[in-house]
Amino acid sequence: MSEPPNDNPKPVREQGRFAYEGLERVIHERARLSILSSLAAHPAGLVFNDLKALCKLTDGNLSRQLSVLQEHGFVEIWKGFKNNRPQTLVRLTATGQERFLEYIANLEKVVADAVRLREASTSHPATEGLLPT
Amino acid sequence: MSEPPNDNPKPVREQGRFAYEGLERVIHERARLSILSSLAAHPAGLVFNDLKALCKLTDGNLSRQLSVLQEHGFVEIWKGFKNNRPQTLVRLTATGQERFLEYIANLEKVVADAVRLREASTSHPATEGLLPT
Repeated sequence: MSEPPNDNPKPVREQGRFAYEGLERVIHERARLSILSSLAAHPAGLVFNDLKALCKLTDGNLSRQLSVLQEHGFVEIWKGFKNNRPQTLVRLTATGQERFLEYIANLEKVVADAVRLREASTSHPATEGLLPT
Repeated sequence: MSEPPNDNPKPVREQGRFAYEGLERVIHERARLSILSSLAAHPAGLVFNDLKALCKLTDGNLSRQLSVLQEHGFVEIWKGFKNNRPQTLVRLTATGQERFLEYIANLEKVVADAVRLREASTSHPATEGLLPT
């Protein structure tokens, strides 16, 4: 028994294949991604000014984004003294680390999808009957 | 001649090391990243409805984001007929492809920075003299 020929072959468009729903909004915003990446690379934490320099953020923007990240349980904020000067130390929480790594796994999917393009030829097939707007 | 000992060794904090300025705002927004990734994977272009399904976007949101991407020269929008029905075809421009790949190279840096964390132990050194807020 053979299958009847398919008169209407259509590529299966997997619903949401490129929706990247794992790119969590809280992490995806560039300033916050920058903060979380810095903290991930420094497991002992970073003082406010070092974090500010690494992320090239203003005091106000860094404070605002840290509040958002703290509210969502991504970071811990510690107050203390170092060399007799008041300091703020920021560290990734265990949850923050876990969710950041999940986010990164999703970024890896975005990269893997794109790498195909880089490796493929840049063919531009004809588009007969179509006019640019 | 030997160098004098450095009494105050301090880790060099490369200014903006984690600023990720290459994560271009126009591309980084998740819906637009989704659209560009879909188009990058389909060099011949995609009709509006297929693009909508792949990105799980509403008609309104897809239209809006396509306008932004067209304004910035990332995509071409073509009007035509397929099976006697009016269709909209969307394709990545050459510039769009180039800038998308640059963006992806920057995402790869974010991933590479994070992979260190995944491979490192999850040590949490003591934070004497510091109190959580």
